[in-house]
Amino acid sequence: MFKIRHALSVTREADFAAWYQAVIAEADLAEESGVRGCMVIKPWGYGIWERIQRLLDDRIKAAGHENCYFPIFIPLANFEREASHVDGFAKEMAVVTHHRLIAGENGGLIPDPEAKLEEPLIVRPTSETIFGDAMARWIQSWRDLPLKLNQWANVVRWEMRTRMFLRTSEFLWQEGHTAHADEAEAKEHTLRMLEVYRACAEEDLALPVIAGEKPEHERFPGAVETWSIEAMMQDGKALQAGTSHYLGTNFSEAAGIQYQDREGQQTFCHTTSWGVSTRMVGGVIMTHGDDDGLRVPPAIAPHQVVILPMLRDKPEDDALLAYCEELRASLAGKSVLGEPLRVLLDKRHGKAAAKRWDWVRKGAPLIIEVGGRDMENGVVSLLRRDGLWDAESGKPAFQTPSKESAAGEIPAMLEDMQRSMLGEARDRREAAITRGVTEFSELERIYGGDAKHPGWTEVQWSKPTGEALEKVVERLKALKLTARNAPMDAEPANGSCIFTGEPAVERILIARAY
Amino acid sequence: MFKIRHALSVTREADFAAWYQAVIAEADLAEESGVRGCMVIKPWGYGIWERIQRLLDDRIKAAGHENCYFPIFIPLANFEREASHVDGFAKEMAVVTHHRLIAGENGGLIPDPEAKLEEPLIVRPTSETIFGDAMARWIQSWRDLPLKLNQWANVVRWEMRTRMFLRTSEFLWQEGHTAHADEAEAKEHTLRMLEVYRACAEEDLALPVIAGEKPEHERFPGAVETWSIEAMMQDGKALQAGTSHYLGTNFSEAAGIQYQDREGQQTFCHTTSWGVSTRMVGGVIMTHGDDDGLRVPPAIAPHQVVILPMLRDKPEDDALLAYCEELRASLAGKSVLGEPLRVLLDKRHGKAAAKRWDWVRKGAPLIIEVGGRDMENGVVSLLRRDGLWDAESGKPAFQTPSKESAAGEIPAMLEDMQRSMLGEARDRREAAITRGVTEFSELERIYGGDAKHPGWTEVQWSKPTGEALEKVVERLKALKLTARNAPMDAEPANGSCIFTGEPAVERILIARAY
Ligand SMILES: [Zn+2]
Ligand SMILES: [Zn+2]
Repeated sequence: MFKIRHALSVTREADFAAWYQAVIAEADLAEESGVRGCMVIKPWGYGIWERIQRLLDDRIKAAGHENCYFPIFIPLANFEREASHVDGFAKEMAVVTHHRLIAGENGGLIPDPEAKLEEPLIVRPTSETIFGDAMARWIQSWRDLPLKLNQWANVVRWEMRTRMFLRTSEFLWQEGHTAHADEAEAKEHTLRMLEVYRACAEEDLALPVIAGEKPEHERFPGAVETWSIEAMMQDGKALQAGTSHYLGTNFSEAAGIQYQDREGQQTFCHTTSWGVSTRMVGGVIMTHGDDDGLRVPPAIAPHQVVILPMLRDKPEDDALLAYCEELRASLAGKSVLGEPLRVLLDKRHGKAAAKRWDWVRKGAPLIIEVGGRDMENGVVSLLRRDGLWDAESGKPAFQTPSKESAAGEIPAMLEDMQRSMLGEARDRREAAITRGVTEFSELERIYGGDAKHPGWTEVQWSKPTGEALEKVVERLKALKLTARNAPMDAEPANGSCIFTGEPAVERILIARAY
Repeated sequence: MFKIRHALSVTREADFAAWYQAVIAEADLAEESGVRGCMVIKPWGYGIWERIQRLLDDRIKAAGHENCYFPIFIPLANFEREASHVDGFAKEMAVVTHHRLIAGENGGLIPDPEAKLEEPLIVRPTSETIFGDAMARWIQSWRDLPLKLNQWANVVRWEMRTRMFLRTSEFLWQEGHTAHADEAEAKEHTLRMLEVYRACAEEDLALPVIAGEKPEHERFPGAVETWSIEAMMQDGKALQAGTSHYLGTNFSEAAGIQYQDREGQQTFCHTTSWGVSTRMVGGVIMTHGDDDGLRVPPAIAPHQVVILPMLRDKPEDDALLAYCEELRASLAGKSVLGEPLRVLLDKRHGKAAAKRWDWVRKGAPLIIEVGGRDMENGVVSLLRRDGLWDAESGKPAFQTPSKESAAGEIPAMLEDMQRSMLGEARDRREAAITRGVTEFSELERIYGGDAKHPGWTEVQWSKPTGEALEKVVERLKALKLTARNAPMDAEPANGSCIFTGEPAVERILIARAY
């Protein structure tokens, strides 16, 4: 047994937060931009986001939505209308006050005092109010319902402490906005989109999630119900990976979204909104990354297979490239997970070993090295990113199938990897959820002690509201815990509330969270 | 002969500007948002933009670029660095000065004076300077070149007079940014991307364009050369539909984008940038629209075929829907212009005639109506949007092929329509360009008279610079004219400059423009 020399200089176990930053840097995913709280998403990171976008967009369209685009600026007055909404957002927004710069006294540029806006504009933190204005114009009769819209956009929420992908002042997301004739249909749609998110997270990102309703104090500002999908990261913390809100008639009443029903009555619509963001990429990193960098699930990998010819800047390179190109063309004609296989022949200059480790750190699912000897033997050297090391030798676990059999086997290999990454993450999560905890003291024991990754706990509670809820929140906060959601698939409650001792009404998940 | 009753209430001939607004409204493309200078892009308009994006993105990636994402906010200091760049942009930018709102004295919200930014942030009008900062970090050696990046993003340029799609304060675009080792490679790349734009405009949008270099005074702020593609609208005016800039070392020197060359010397990169925007959609409208609304070229039509069952809310509807669904499924399996055919079976409630005219105004390429009698006869009623009227009867020119032959013939019909829309627009443009004009007085005659749509003029000039150029610009401005570009495919100059009388060095196009 040899000791494996991992590709990153920091391990998950040693320092999870530092490891996360190291993966982002070493896998070339993103970097600080120099603009406060904003990041630059680099090509490999953006390529993963583009894949998520494409797959989720297909799902959103299949659920009957149409894409559109609304202005980035929202008038101040929109925020003044819906009281709980402005309370939730007013504290962290970018405010545009001028529309021109002029030369200042010391040679620099300053906002032109003559070009001050009469009413400041807000850079959208979310777009319920401006979609609401349009819905009020577009909806007249029951025939116009449901109205199902979505947009892909950037949004800004001024954040004091930022962390790449997880919490940045600007981020990219999709936001769906729908209007319905009644509560039942709107609630059903809220859950339908939650299910779309669950399917995308699990099937596309190999990210196991638990879908459920957020407790009252975690609701979106202005929502009647907020539902989420929660994923467990490798450090046992929770990541809220997507939310779907039933907004009741709160935004309809504020914006005047009404329709004439079949009886001729003017009636307020019931609306929903739901979004997932580039935060998902952070979830992929913290779920699938290892001590050698990122591992990208095949469904969202910009390149699923990377072919690395071991070039020597000699005449023999031509034959080697031709051999690799045959393999590339053969793979490009295959289908994986219902789409054409994505293969890159990486002809860049540079040492083969350096390029191999680049792609290992980036997490390309399959890396194929081809040297002169491979070509002579009609084989390729194949490395699965999810089985990188030979435990016995401590070396990379290369397989050497023939070129033809490699081309034939790779699609199934990728599909297997997609499945097994989900399974691995799900097993890890299930092992890290403690169920059946009935005493608060047990929570104190689990989370107050030395356990590094105490995971999640499922408890029963009486779903307190108002001040009683505030007390629960405080007690959890003392242990750095939050209530994540009440899983929709959980067994019915059958005991007492761990906080109040009253009869429990549902089960909820307790965790530390991002 | 009957008089045709067109679907719009205003014709191109009567009032082109009013007609343009009418098409946008009646085809449900976009509308004013209520936010100054910003529009809401509605699903059908956004669907066209999504198609343009998809096709152009494929072309940009095929040319070796990778997508990424940079912050929407640019620090003021970036604009202070490159003098001509700031001169060009500083007058029309949205300035963020605060990051929080608080309750004001009269109950409303105001920017929190305590949350004033130390340095204002600019909402990006374009991203050369912030890409430049990253390129300076990312490029060390000749091995890192060329660096070829692209982003799809929203940008803001504060505009006093706005016009939907053509000039809005916020618009959507892609901006490419590349860095190269030397001038020759950067200039070659500038032209390569111009050619990508030409191909996209002509092959995808059926928009004939003339590619050429902009005169000095029309250069992008900070550019050494600016090239454009120019399209002629149906009123004879020019629309700049895309630009590609060779930036020399201006931005490299400002941001410090240097590399170590093969000899170990530190050398400044030569950079390029290039962009096309939602303005393209305005070009499609003014090129292909007619007095019945929009006509969308099949390659960029969200739905290429729309099937309208003539439903009667009766039990017979089921059989009719099944008949239509068979046609839909058969069409969905076909390929058109290298992609799966896009077909919609529109089952919405509403009168068949109203729905037909909706789709006529939206410009769906083929509309298929199916009534009970069609079904009995095994046929469909097919309407080509590019041949809407039977001139003899003044009625819609329905064809009634059998359902099977319709499915077979439609792909070729759509491809024919794509070709003929380009040909039609090109013929119209060529007929409206006056060539061989050698005297300025002739320009005065052409553009000073009563001609409603005087079109473009090709003249020869000595390519004056500085003050001599300013005089030319003034003389043209008096006739409401601008120099568009010097077409790269034009014959060499062989005469005298129409402005200065000196020997001409190139031919340029003169036109009124959007
Ligand atoms: Zn609330
Ligand atoms: Zn300039």
